[in-house]
Amino acid sequence: MDKNEFALQEHEKWQGKIEVISRAKVDSAEALSVAYTPGVAEPCLKIAEDTELSYKYTRRHNMVAVVTDGSAVLGLGDIGPEAGMPVMEGKCVLFKSFGNVDAFPLCIRSKEVDDIVNTVRLLAGSFGGVNLEDISAPRCFEIERRLKECCDIPIFHDDQHGTAVVTVAALLNALKFTGRRLEDIKVVTSGAGAAGIAIIKLLVSLGLKHVVMCDRNGAIYEGREGLNPVKEEMALITNKEKRKGSLQDMLRGADVFIGVSAPGTVTKEMVMSMAKDPILFPMANPTPEIMPDLALEAGAAVVGTGRSDFPNQINNVLAFPGIFRGALDVRAKDINDEMKLAAAYAIAGLVSEEELKADYIIPNAFDPRVAPAVARAVGEAWERSSR
Amino acid sequence: MDKNEFALQEHEKWQGKIEVISRAKVDSAEALSVAYTPGVAEPCLKIAEDTELSYKYTRRHNMVAVVTDGSAVLGLGDIGPEAGMPVMEGKCVLFKSFGNVDAFPLCIRSKEVDDIVNTVRLLAGSFGGVNLEDISAPRCFEIERRLKECCDIPIFHDDQHGTAVVTVAALLNALKFTGRRLEDIKVVTSGAGAAGIAIIKLLVSLGLKHVVMCDRNGAIYEGREGLNPVKEEMALITNKEKRKGSLQDMLRGADVFIGVSAPGTVTKEMVMSMAKDPILFPMANPTPEIMPDLALEAGAAVVGTGRSDFPNQINNVLAFPGIFRGALDVRAKDINDEMKLAAAYAIAGLVSEEELKADYIIPNAFDPRVAPAVARAVGEAWERSSR
Repeated sequence: MDKNEFALQEHEKWQGKIEVISRAKVDSAEALSVAYTPGVAEPCLKIAEDTELSYKYTRRHNMVAVVTDGSAVLGLGDIGPEAGMPVMEGKCVLFKSFGNVDAFPLCIRSKEVDDIVNTVRLLAGSFGGVNLEDISAPRCFEIERRLKECCDIPIFHDDQHGTAVVTVAALLNALKFTGRRLEDIKVVTSGAGAAGIAIIKLLVSLGLKHVVMCDRNGAIYEGREGLNPVKEEMALITNKEKRKGSLQDMLRGADVFIGVSAPGTVTKEMVMSMAKDPILFPMANPTPEIMPDLALEAGAAVVGTGRSDFPNQINNVLAFPGIFRGALDVRAKDINDEMKLAAAYAIAGLVSEEELKADYIIPNAFDPRVAPAVARAVGEAWERSSR
Repeated sequence: MDKNEFALQEHEKWQGKIEVISRAKVDSAEALSVAYTPGVAEPCLKIAEDTELSYKYTRRHNMVAVVTDGSAVLGLGDIGPEAGMPVMEGKCVLFKSFGNVDAFPLCIRSKEVDDIVNTVRLLAGSFGGVNLEDISAPRCFEIERRLKECCDIPIFHDDQHGTAVVTVAALLNALKFTGRRLEDIKVVTSGAGAAGIAIIKLLVSLGLKHVVMCDRNGAIYEGREGLNPVKEEMALITNKEKRKGSLQDMLRGADVFIGVSAPGTVTKEMVMSMAKDPILFPMANPTPEIMPDLALEAGAAVVGTGRSDFPNQINNVLAFPGIFRGALDVRAKDINDEMKLAAAYAIAGLVSEEELKADYIIPNAFDPRVAPAVARAVGEAWERSSR
């Protein structure tokens, strides 16, 4: 059977990949009177006195909403809220399986920023956190910013920050492996969407100095015509020399390529034009900007992709389950940069210096040490940074 | 240990009465590639072509939202969304335990009708149905009406219609037991809120002719000053003789008392003033309008309350799990009057003529025949009425 057919058949068999079950047995009138009326009035009254007790007496302490409008689902684009649901259910499965976080998918029937913000804001009392997912740029930036302002629970756009955390983790180890320092290297991106921007912002906050972001029209520089506000903002903190030109031009002499764009954007020749022992993360899914074997043939020292069938998979599942696990455990009100960086260092730290090699710069997605290590680091970072 | 303390302790132990679990195992890269990327793209694309397939490839076919604003929680009143959550989680437990319906609680941080309608409307693609709960009157009427208009999934306000279905079921059997016909009897209510109005509307649709509803100011009649629009509407279809006076006045000679108001509203003397062998359903919770022993001493032929520690418990759990089970099974787009009446007859029908007695007019909440019987009847009624 063809793989797509098989996936379809499995989805039909699952009849939904999540299920809501009861943790309370109500098999007698006695039991019913504790879990429901009249006994249930007691926790209600306690929470009415002190809202924080909702974390003690309800599932809120472990419950995350996975929210989308279906506008940028995988590489499929704007397929609508109902069609986005299989991905959101899948995300909830990963949250539970990797982080023991209860996650519930909510697909919103509107692409208006106001509608999405209002819906999430009004539901924030039912959840301990919100994971935004597959919402197209640039709306995703405004939605996240506004929700962070008006909600008292962590708001996290995984397509931005989950990707950024894992990419930074991979890069930290790749730099160590090739004997470079972040301050010295030249980084070039292909792609300036949600993920690309979040990656570069996080790297800049860590000390990256030389970086040029490219979109379909080549290098982004201050003053380029037709930039949207988010790219304008990036033009101010990247490409200090205001270089102009194509991705091919920019890659010449660069140490690191970060691809969050489209298949086939990078050729063997372009890799050969980079600095010695270049690092390449062509992460377009499912087909990378350049296939790993080609990049290695052209002299790449380290290659990481988004795919599980190649070494060095840069997979968000290394980050978000542990990040939310940690944030929920310490009841963080936000997921800030300190927490993201702590997560990146925790992931990178799981590969020891002795283990580090070209095809093992980042732990495997199924390494059971990852989520607990990330959770601990993130929790500590919150305690530290929120004092 | 005191009962309230025990309930609180149990709630703390449960750490939430619901949990979201995964139905898909993702313990290998292979499994991950089916439940998540790239395999998940396949069901997404199918649903993008035909939204109805969301019922096949996601959990929507079995998923109900339990929605409140926390404005009328139990008898506790407006305690807010977070404090309403223990009741909503309890409701979800009952949905799962009695009807095998997955239910997820959403507590909305607004009491504005527009906010509540918009939130539910925008999320309707993520659910197979919506159960409104503990939203205060008269807003609950407008919210339900508007949602029924704009949503393509069943919307059901349980405080109105669940209560109505079970009360009608109990009354049908009580009439049979005392040898009366609905067309002939005189009914008096204490209470003209969401439940009282829904009960009387359903009974009138079944043929009830003589009925007077009373609120705190006594009988409701056409032209009474200060009636809200919903009571004005009820004044037109009840109390045809435009009788004025107190609940005490109205009860004189009445066959049936339906109480959805407050403790102690009915005295022994008032019961003695009713017709011979009166039927009393004092359903105020937890303390009825009159205690069953007093009512029986005063000559009541049948007494039903909302309590599990007396016979004839008129409990919504007899209705809503089966009603949603049936609606989901046939993928009904609405829960209409035909379906509610079918549910009432199905519940009543489970007590055979031979079994029928004063203290057994309605099945026990834990009778395992109830939900399947209700589900079947409701599904058939939808098929019949939607043709």
